[in-house]
Amino acid sequence: MKFGGTSMAGSERIRRVANIVRRQQAAGHEVAVVVSAMAGETDRLVGFCREANPLYDPAEYDVVVASGEQVTAGLLALTLQALGCKARSWLGWQLPIHTDNVHAKARIEGIDAQALLTSMAAGEIAVIPGFQGLSDHGRITTLGRGGSDTSAVAVAAGIGADRCDIYTDVDGVYTTDPRIVAKARKLKYVTYEEMLELASVGSKVLQTRSVSLAMKEGVRVQVLSSFIDDDATPADEIPGTLIVSDEELARLTENVDMERQLITGIAADKNEAKIILTRVPDRPGAVATIFGPLAGANINVDMIIQNVGRDKGETDVTFTVPSADLLRAQTLLEAQKEAIGYNRIITDGKVAKISVVGVGMKSHAGVAATMFRAMADRGINIQAISTSEIKVSVLIDEDETELAVRVLHSAYGMDAEGEAA
Amino acid sequence: MKFGGTSMAGSERIRRVANIVRRQQAAGHEVAVVVSAMAGETDRLVGFCREANPLYDPAEYDVVVASGEQVTAGLLALTLQALGCKARSWLGWQLPIHTDNVHAKARIEGIDAQALLTSMAAGEIAVIPGFQGLSDHGRITTLGRGGSDTSAVAVAAGIGADRCDIYTDVDGVYTTDPRIVAKARKLKYVTYEEMLELASVGSKVLQTRSVSLAMKEGVRVQVLSSFIDDDATPADEIPGTLIVSDEELARLTENVDMERQLITGIAADKNEAKIILTRVPDRPGAVATIFGPLAGANINVDMIIQNVGRDKGETDVTFTVPSADLLRAQTLLEAQKEAIGYNRIITDGKVAKISVVGVGMKSHAGVAATMFRAMADRGINIQAISTSEIKVSVLIDEDETELAVRVLHSAYGMDAEGEAA
Repeated sequence: MKFGGTSMAGSERIRRVANIVRRQQAAGHEVAVVVSAMAGETDRLVGFCREANPLYDPAEYDVVVASGEQVTAGLLALTLQALGCKARSWLGWQLPIHTDNVHAKARIEGIDAQALLTSMAAGEIAVIPGFQGLSDHGRITTLGRGGSDTSAVAVAAGIGADRCDIYTDVDGVYTTDPRIVAKARKLKYVTYEEMLELASVGSKVLQTRSVSLAMKEGVRVQVLSSFIDDDATPADEIPGTLIVSDEELARLTENVDMERQLITGIAADKNEAKIILTRVPDRPGAVATIFGPLAGANINVDMIIQNVGRDKGETDVTFTVPSADLLRAQTLLEAQKEAIGYNRIITDGKVAKISVVGVGMKSHAGVAATMFRAMADRGINIQAISTSEIKVSVLIDEDETELAVRVLHSAYGMDAEGEAA
Repeated sequence: MKFGGTSMAGSERIRRVANIVRRQQAAGHEVAVVVSAMAGETDRLVGFCREANPLYDPAEYDVVVASGEQVTAGLLALTLQALGCKARSWLGWQLPIHTDNVHAKARIEGIDAQALLTSMAAGEIAVIPGFQGLSDHGRITTLGRGGSDTSAVAVAAGIGADRCDIYTDVDGVYTTDPRIVAKARKLKYVTYEEMLELASVGSKVLQTRSVSLAMKEGVRVQVLSSFIDDDATPADEIPGTLIVSDEELARLTENVDMERQLITGIAADKNEAKIILTRVPDRPGAVATIFGPLAGANINVDMIIQNVGRDKGETDVTFTVPSADLLRAQTLLEAQKEAIGYNRIITDGKVAKISVVGVGMKSHAGVAATMFRAMADRGINIQAISTSEIKVSVLIDEDETELAVRVLHSAYGMDAEGEAA
């Protein structure tokens, strides 16, 4: 079970969490709990680090920021004890949770789970601070913001958990953002791949890394709300959204009457900016001179579209970068103008990427065509298109984001009441 | 060097501390720094623990409260780096600082100083969170409130430091409380024994345990202010009060013209309460039936005076306990009335203990007589007397505390200007 910062913000909420945990134990489960710092605490600690040293040493930064989860781990153990449960905290260096040595954005390499398993088998609830680990050098590391989801999946994998329940402030994964489409439906199941596509295009329910790790390790992850009335739900029911493999999805849904939706979800992402380089020489290596320097500057390029221009031997190249990196990218490309040999650079920060995602589209033609038709009918101009096995993304004007999402949600027949399977 | 919570309260103050530390390094010293949590932080964390579980598990309490010093250690390392110094933090479990397993009031058993010494020899400033250690079981321990002074002395002993400078919000040890006696003078030197007597009777400059440890390990401790203008003082001067052994005191003062004061300081303690049991049977074992149960309840009895009463075979027994324990002690003694066989119990929470302290009195008669005479002249009634080798304490009405301290400060000729040697 993993609880985020909103769930851990203050004694009253920690008591709620402890009750949810106790209930799972009372249902006969052995439980390990991964916790985030209290909401706002990590920001406070990061603020201190910035004030101390704007170019902070990530190793000392980790010493400071890891303390937030240490506090909530101790407090949850204390609160569980107050409810009569046996509980103890296990800090990152105590298990340990081994990571690489890349401070402030470390990757988990493995977990020594033996002591944990022994303690859990003896009826003790294990409480583990998320976000933190131990480097080869014996120093505290942290996993980067939002890393507690990844900690939870890693612990679940380490102890061979039946399920990793991630409690958040939403009650599951929806077909699209319910703030945009009132008729958005909560999904009962979603596959790792779908979740990755949905997460990476803006459905920020889970950290992308945690989903990748769950897929790699085969951990069944449930996303659910920590604010549900837990006494009203049987402990073994799945009130949230279960994230599973393709195979398990097939098994889970084979006896379900209703055919599974072609499209699982629709995601919108406004944090993209578009760059067009006009009249780039159409010769081998030209594209490398564009994207090499961007990669070197750690700027993630997402969609790339190469339009053959009117003039032979030249082509327009369109691509997107995160909005936050637009200025850096532009500066970099202008410095490379001679080397690349383009004519003009055109940038647009006011674009949105709309993606329809679903494993079902692997075996169905026409998904993209439905999308283009629905948008054309409403006069929404598509600036660029990119596709993967389970996703079609288009770039549109940012002002048309909400309209596009609503139009597509209807076009794929997702507006009906009830839950999708 | 050790800095308390007031010195670590916020980025601006931590920068001040970093500058003081850098200055010592620039003067050619290898430096280790022990830090407290930001002022108020430990109270905040203790408050969380109490809310989580009023009867908290001290092992989990330690996990929570140790985080305060972890944060300031990381922040001081970052701030030192920002000033161009090499610096790194060493948490209690990283050195480690070995303690016993008594959580929330652990005692330091030893420090592995080798890694620290290697790092310091390479020019790195070592920053160590105070208050925390590691138990045999690999869990975080804390030393009890104010434990950072003890951490500092233990680190100084572990690395064989030339001196342990404890920076506080006062600029040294005074002959008495300057808020009571304006003419109180700062002492240049004080012995461990004197400091212990002064500390245990209310001069709360240093934690008593830290002084005991310094005495046992022969660590020279300086108390000084972290708010002095450090640029005005040469780095190697001793601006505060140096706490040393009798032998070093003799050596340090042998070439000083002025004879050392007979009395080093006068301390007042209002946190005592008096209990009188009347007509206790004067037979072997009677006193044990009184103090056995109090010791069992962990109530520290300080002064004990047995007055033979008028009636043969009976005696009045007077003693003091901490004010905070008065009610518990009274309840306990009332429950034991039959067993002890006393007639009445009389309690008084409004008493103060005034003590004159000085190694000089070992070889001088008349110190006590001067005290009693001076107080009698001003009509201050003495309720009880107790003496040690280097201390005379009397119990008086709490309302007369300030008067008594002023009278005695004059009576022993301590009011002159300039510093005592």
